[in-house]
Amino acid sequence: MKILCSTTPPQQLQRHLRDTYPAHQFIFQKDLDETDIHLAESEILITFGDDFTVRHLERARALKWLCCISAGVDKLPLEALAQRAILVTNASGVHSIPMAEYAIGMMLAHVKCFKVQILNQQQSQWNAKLPFEELNGKTLLLLGTGAISKKVSELAAAFAVTVIGVSRSGKQETGYQHVGKIDSLIEMLPQADFIISILPSTKETKNLLKKEHFLAMKSTALFMNLGRGDLFEEQVLINALTEKQVAAAVLDVFHSEPLQPNHPFWQLENLTITPHDSSHSAGYFPRAFAIFEENLGYYLKNEHEKTINLVDHQKGY
Amino acid sequence: MKILCSTTPPQQLQRHLRDTYPAHQFIFQKDLDETDIHLAESEILITFGDDFTVRHLERARALKWLCCISAGVDKLPLEALAQRAILVTNASGVHSIPMAEYAIGMMLAHVKCFKVQILNQQQSQWNAKLPFEELNGKTLLLLGTGAISKKVSELAAAFAVTVIGVSRSGKQETGYQHVGKIDSLIEMLPQADFIISILPSTKETKNLLKKEHFLAMKSTALFMNLGRGDLFEEQVLINALTEKQVAAAVLDVFHSEPLQPNHPFWQLENLTITPHDSSHSAGYFPRAFAIFEENLGYYLKNEHEKTINLVDHQKGY
Repeated sequence: MKILCSTTPPQQLQRHLRDTYPAHQFIFQKDLDETDIHLAESEILITFGDDFTVRHLERARALKWLCCISAGVDKLPLEALAQRAILVTNASGVHSIPMAEYAIGMMLAHVKCFKVQILNQQQSQWNAKLPFEELNGKTLLLLGTGAISKKVSELAAAFAVTVIGVSRSGKQETGYQHVGKIDSLIEMLPQADFIISILPSTKETKNLLKKEHFLAMKSTALFMNLGRGDLFEEQVLINALTEKQVAAAVLDVFHSEPLQPNHPFWQLENLTITPHDSSHSAGYFPRAFAIFEENLGYYLKNEHEKTINLVDHQKGY
Repeated sequence: MKILCSTTPPQQLQRHLRDTYPAHQFIFQKDLDETDIHLAESEILITFGDDFTVRHLERARALKWLCCISAGVDKLPLEALAQRAILVTNASGVHSIPMAEYAIGMMLAHVKCFKVQILNQQQSQWNAKLPFEELNGKTLLLLGTGAISKKVSELAAAFAVTVIGVSRSGKQETGYQHVGKIDSLIEMLPQADFIISILPSTKETKNLLKKEHFLAMKSTALFMNLGRGDLFEEQVLINALTEKQVAAAVLDVFHSEPLQPNHPFWQLENLTITPHDSSHSAGYFPRAFAIFEENLGYYLKNEHEKTINLVDHQKGY
């Protein structure tokens, strides 16, 4: 069987797959042309999911399983894949650990004034009078209660942080002292020392946070956005930070990426900017391919009912 | 009863003590003169322990309990205190939470390249190609297995980090996969992705780490010193960092503090310097006074045998 992979994982991983499954032919390449010679003959395609169109599908006559190694499959032609009854899996969950580590890291960096300390070092400046806090005993409000949020909650609990959450349904979940409905967000904000959004971009979340939300937060609070950039109008956050409605913010996502060099965000001293890399990790490929390998085991034994991370073609996740 | 405190905790804490114990008189002042009028009449003295000499003791005729709110009591005249049978307590354990949070924060900052990200932001530079790692699955070697080390170990475990340790005795302890003797340190170093020293300064630990130790560490390792600055000769670390024997280091303690502005450490780009503030925290006073209050309860009820953080005058801790 031919297995085509339209991305190139680390050599070690490629070797592992070839050594472990010698009966099958793995092809690793950087991209996926519509006229790709291997595409027509491959039974399995491993892809990030943003390079596969209906035209690729037409050519992929042998395709039975499309293994998407990213979490979102919104760019895949799911309807056409459904018509051909092609199995689709994703790598949902693969971001939880790196993003949760990033979130806790930024919370600690905030309470331990790492940014100021690093900038002090640049000036050879010894200043031992910074206002250090702790995570211990603080309250974290998570916007969204999905896999990433749950992992943040789990790590935060180890630091004796009280975790509360909001979600669309307000369904109570293990690991959160309380989960409120998104409508009750403004009433929950004053309790939190840390507010982290991991919300996707939907009709309900677009511009969800307004001036009144930032005014409802503690003036000592740290606000972090790891979800999508359109959660608020940029000017609302600029005002919140310059008027000290909150103490500081961390943004990993933006309205438009990359953030332009002249964007006013860069100059705000109580804003930490990272270039949408909170999910990046050397652990990404190994973890995504571990999902692939587990499913390959089921696939080879015809145990399709055991498939994990199966995508529902209709629902789209 | 008069209770003299030679430091000024936050107003809220002063008020709390006065309100909770109205039968007793609390005096809070910034320092402690040998001729202090309150010193002669106070039954309890609360101090950081570095302002109290034999001459203070001579004047402190009513003194029955010296409550030291720092961990180390090495500057106290313990022998003279023993002769008067004055109860001595310390605040041992009070540094565990802030220092463990600092340690995990610096580990996360390292794997998520926070320093480079912060400096990139200063240049309005969007660089999403940094080599991010994770704590998950890594190995941490802790030099020392005392209270602070145990707390680091506990937090690291939440991140699925394997924790090993070395101590003088090599006694196995909960929370460490293995504890080796300090003599076997060099054999354990190659296993570790993170090496953190929390060792005190003793004859055995002075210049303990030599060139061969840094050569034995992984070239990808992060080395951190939160114990005492004389753990190694400064030039040994400068060589280790410039020759990339290790990837990076974090120092919170130094041979001479504050670090002079012309010290070569400031300029090493793979070294993070903090000004001996890893234990600093807004939680310090509340935590140290919680120990005082628990002991005050026992003291007032004459239940001296229940006293926590009791210092042995002979042993000195």
